[in-house]
Amino acid sequence: MGPRRPVSAVDRGRFAGKSCVVTGGLGFIGSSLSLALAGAGAHVTVIDAAIPTHGANPHNLDGAAPPIPVVRADIGDADLVAPVVEGAELIFNLAGQVSHVDAMADPVFDLEMNVRSQLRFLETLRRASPGAVVVHASTRLVYGRPASLPVDEEHPCAPHDVNGITKLAGEQLHLLYHRTYGLATCSLRLCNVYGPRQRIVDDRQGVLPAFIRKALRGEPLTVFGTGDQLRDCLYVDDAVEAFLAAASTPGAAGGIFNISHDKPLPLRVIAEELVALAGGGNVVSVPWPDQHAQIDVGSYFGDSSKAARVLGWQPRVDLPDGLARTLEFYRKDLACYLPST
Amino acid sequence: MGPRRPVSAVDRGRFAGKSCVVTGGLGFIGSSLSLALAGAGAHVTVIDAAIPTHGANPHNLDGAAPPIPVVRADIGDADLVAPVVEGAELIFNLAGQVSHVDAMADPVFDLEMNVRSQLRFLETLRRASPGAVVVHASTRLVYGRPASLPVDEEHPCAPHDVNGITKLAGEQLHLLYHRTYGLATCSLRLCNVYGPRQRIVDDRQGVLPAFIRKALRGEPLTVFGTGDQLRDCLYVDDAVEAFLAAASTPGAAGGIFNISHDKPLPLRVIAEELVALAGGGNVVSVPWPDQHAQIDVGSYFGDSSKAARVLGWQPRVDLPDGLARTLEFYRKDLACYLPST
Repeated sequence: MGPRRPVSAVDRGRFAGKSCVVTGGLGFIGSSLSLALAGAGAHVTVIDAAIPTHGANPHNLDGAAPPIPVVRADIGDADLVAPVVEGAELIFNLAGQVSHVDAMADPVFDLEMNVRSQLRFLETLRRASPGAVVVHASTRLVYGRPASLPVDEEHPCAPHDVNGITKLAGEQLHLLYHRTYGLATCSLRLCNVYGPRQRIVDDRQGVLPAFIRKALRGEPLTVFGTGDQLRDCLYVDDAVEAFLAAASTPGAAGGIFNISHDKPLPLRVIAEELVALAGGGNVVSVPWPDQHAQIDVGSYFGDSSKAARVLGWQPRVDLPDGLARTLEFYRKDLACYLPST
Repeated sequence: MGPRRPVSAVDRGRFAGKSCVVTGGLGFIGSSLSLALAGAGAHVTVIDAAIPTHGANPHNLDGAAPPIPVVRADIGDADLVAPVVEGAELIFNLAGQVSHVDAMADPVFDLEMNVRSQLRFLETLRRASPGAVVVHASTRLVYGRPASLPVDEEHPCAPHDVNGITKLAGEQLHLLYHRTYGLATCSLRLCNVYGPRQRIVDDRQGVLPAFIRKALRGEPLTVFGTGDQLRDCLYVDDAVEAFLAAASTPGAAGGIFNISHDKPLPLRVIAEELVALAGGGNVVSVPWPDQHAQIDVGSYFGDSSKAARVLGWQPRVDLPDGLARTLEFYRKDLACYLPST
């Protein structure tokens, strides 16, 4: 992989005065996106069911000026949601259950959140805001275990866990409502995103937030097995740029886009990088726990050249820089994210 | 396509004394399968929610000796279902919502039936009958609009309607419960199946049953557009053989199999064949109605060479023979299937 071509940030002027709704806007990526939109002068409203294990944190919208209004609702609740989305120009749909382990433990709840509520939300949009641009957050989990690397959007979808199955159905419904009802929906298949405002208090949100918590506490970072599984990790600001780029590209409607990082690294190297940055702790290898071994997919990294071509998007933050910024954020606000520390 | 190699029927002796459960056993294929199993000396219990628009017809099990017990329950109802499946050796899972048009009109209900109830059923099986062989009825609709023909199991799944999305999620959950919990599940992607005991009273179940009803009544058979879309139509006895073959093949667990017919025909030719057999009526062409044009996928025919190789299954009944048998069945029992005629 050669040196990265410089990509300029999406012009923030496009969003000034725009009426925007962000679902899951109290969560990790949703709050980062909401703050970016508000900072660009957009009128932002957040819809969030505020389910703590999903990543909602009331502190995530701290410091927004003017404050960002939050409607506390499941996106499937048409009575509460329809008045909010009516007349919205841009809808960023990031609500969802994101823990793979929780999805395996309570698959019916995962289905309710990630498919039933999404479907009811699409029905609401179809009626209340048929002209809005809708950008949906999907996941690389829809691919399952990669047949070849890097994974592009033509790779077959054979999800390997409950969360991948429900997220794929939610994504397919978004595209169906584009084809059938003309909603301007597109879907971003996100790789592992990390950064400020992520839920790091336990291991529910996956390996990166667990690493970050342990690095902050000076605890050993555990990698399963040899730790040589590759991952492409994306700093949250790059993910936010992808949502802004998709919302600014009329040709994105009906599309699916990998949002990946082009410099994958072994999990062990990522852990060692964090330990070095944190200035303490160490990396230890442990055998695979059963519940993880059941759903792990080995190495993964995506090909996001379609997003580069169509959306003009590329990642701009490399891992050491992103991790340093992440640690700095949490150290300043530790009580809001690790109250027991 | 050359002359068909003769394939012998699955040995019925394998099923004598076996404890079998058929979900959706009051429906079209489910009842045909239940009667075949009972005829082979199996102990059959049917679970059926008896939702009339899904195809349940109390007459479908008429004539079984001894009578086949029917438990009226949604398969998602663990309290009612667990005692039935406990100790079952073979489980044929055919329950589901099958109308594409109904699924578009009430997508949330389709989701509840085809994913939520299926998921709860799998959770029940995992606990109450972890050793059973489970054969699940999926559909060619999971492929969406074919990128190439014939469609084999490696063809990408990009369902084009709500019913295809929910059926795909149900199928993926069956395979997940095999990989993760060791359930001996496999899934059959059925093409357009026709024959005795199908619900023909309105157009909900698709084009073939509508054709058959109109042929029986001497009404004009309407094809949309030019009527040159190809379809592979499978006589119900061949579908039943596929379920029996899958249940008899230990290597089938974890597998997906197209169950298709190798002699696809244009819809117009199928209609003309029916008119000729019925000795009346005619074929007329009408413009595409909106709700059908939205979800039609053009020509489709499947490649079922994997089923031939692994399950030893091939279709044995060609269309003229199957349609003749179908008309004969309904003419004898017309009041049970077209009460208003």
